Amino acid sequence: MKYGARNNLKATVKSIQTGDIMSMVKFEVTLPADMASVLTTESLQDLDLKVGDQVQLVVKAIHVLAVKD
Amino acid sequence: MKYGARNNLKATVKSIQTGDIMSMVKFEVTLPADMASVLTTESLQDLDLKVGDQVQLVVKAIHVLAVKD
Amino acid sequence: MKYGARNNLKATVKSIQTGDIMSMVKFEVTLPADMASVLTTESLQDLDLKVGDQVQLVVKAIHVLAVKD
Amino acid sequence: MKYGARNNLKATVKSIQTGDIMSMVKFEVTLPADMASVLTTESLQDLDLKVGDQVQLVVKAIHVLAVKD
Amino acid sequence: MKYGARNNLKATVKSIQTGDIMSMVKFEVTLPADMASVLTTESLQDLDLKVGDQVQLVVKAIHVLAVKD
Amino acid sequence: MKYGARNNLKATVKSIQTGDIMSMVKFEVTLPADMASVLTTESLQDLDLKVGDQVQLVVKAIHVLAVKD
Repeated sequence: MKYGARNNLKATVKSIQTGDIMSMVKFEVTLPADMASVLTTESLQDLDLKVGDQVQLVVKAIHVLAVKD
Repeated sequence: MKYGARNNLKATVKSIQTGDIMSMVKFEVTLPADMASVLTTESLQDLDLKVGDQVQLVVKAIHVLAVKD
Repeated sequence: MKYGARNNLKATVKSIQTGDIMSMVKFEVTLPADMASVLTTESLQDLDLKVGDQVQLVVKAIHVLAVKD
Repeated sequence: MKYGARNNLKATVKSIQTGDIMSMVKFEVTLPADMASVLTTESLQDLDLKVGDQVQLVVKAIHVLAVKD
Repeated sequence: MKYGARNNLKATVKSIQTGDIMSMVKFEVTLPADMASVLTTESLQDLDLKVGDQVQLVVKAIHVLAVKD
Repeated sequence: MKYGARNNLKATVKSIQTGDIMSMVKFEVTLPADMASVLTTESLQDLDLKVGDQVQLVVKAIHVLAVKD
C-alpha cells in the first residue's frame, strides 16, 4: 500500500474520546520520524529556514488520517 | 505562544527544496512525540480502534505548518 | 459561478446527521465524475502511477464543501 | 486496510502532469459513488439542506489522497 | 449560492503569480470581516480564549478557495 | 515568531461555542487584511482572474488556526 503523502508515521493508540459526530484519538509516535512540509516559496523565504534550524510543526488534528491494517 | 491545534512537534530542518510557487522542507522530529487525529465517530467505529493498536498516521505535507521563533 | 478548485461533483443529499457543533451530510454522486489530486512530485514518484492504474481516492469529509444554488 | 475517512472512491488514472515540487493527477471515478461532508451545524442550517436536494461538492485537489495497492 | 463554510470574505485581486502546476493569487479583503475557527474543545481550553481577546488567525493559502461570479 | 503560511490576520474574539469534541470561535477582523490563495494553474485559468476582479474567498472554519500570545 502506497500513499500520495509525504508523512507516514507509525503510532500506537493511547486514548479515544467519542463525540456525537466527531471523535478524537491520541497516539504515541515512537520510531524515528521524518516529516515534510509544503509551503509557498514566499513563506519559505519569510521563514528564512536553514538546514539545522529548530522549528515547531503545527498540524490540526483534523488533518491527521489514521490507517489500520 | 499557544496554538489552536493538538499537534505541536519539535523538529530540525534536514533539507530544503525550492520551486517556482511551492517549496518543500524536510524535518527530523524529536521523539517521543504525541499526536492526535479528529475523525467522524462513524469512521472511528469502522476503524474499530482500541488502546494499544498499531496504526499509521498519514498527513499530506501541505497540512504541516512550520513555525520558527 | 466559478470555483478555484479542480473537483466539482454534482450530488444528491441522502442523509443528514446533526450534532452540537459539527454535522455530517451524505451524498450520492450520480454523474460520470472526474477528480484531480495534487501531491508532491516526490510522492508521485513513490506511487509510481501510470495512466490506467486503479487507485483509491481518500478524502476526509471535513474537506468536502457543499454548495447549493 | 481501513482509513479514518468517510470518502473512499475507486478511480482510474487518466493523466499525469509533473511539476518542480507539486504534480497533478487526474482520475475517472467508477460510479456509483457515495460521499460525505462534515460542516458546522450552523453552516448546515444556513444551507437549509433536505434529503433529495441537488448540491455541488467542491474539493480542492490538494485534499485528495491517492492510495495504490 | 450558499456555501457549507463559515468564512465568506469579499476581496479584490491584487496580484497573480503563475507557476508550472500551482499558482498564487493575492487579495485585499473588504473590511470589516467576520471569521470563524473550529478547533477541538481541548485546544480551546489550552488557548484559554475569552471574548475580547486579541488573537492571530493563521491560514495556509492552499485552504483559501476563490469563487468568482 | 514566524509562520510558514501566507495568511496572518489580527482578530478579536467575539463569541465561543463549546461542544463535546469540537468547538467554534468567532472573530472580528478589523485591520487592513491581505489574503493569499494557492490553487492549480489550471483552476486559475478557468477562473480567468484579473487584477481588480471582485471575488469571494471561502474558507472552512476548520482550516483557521487561532494563535494567542
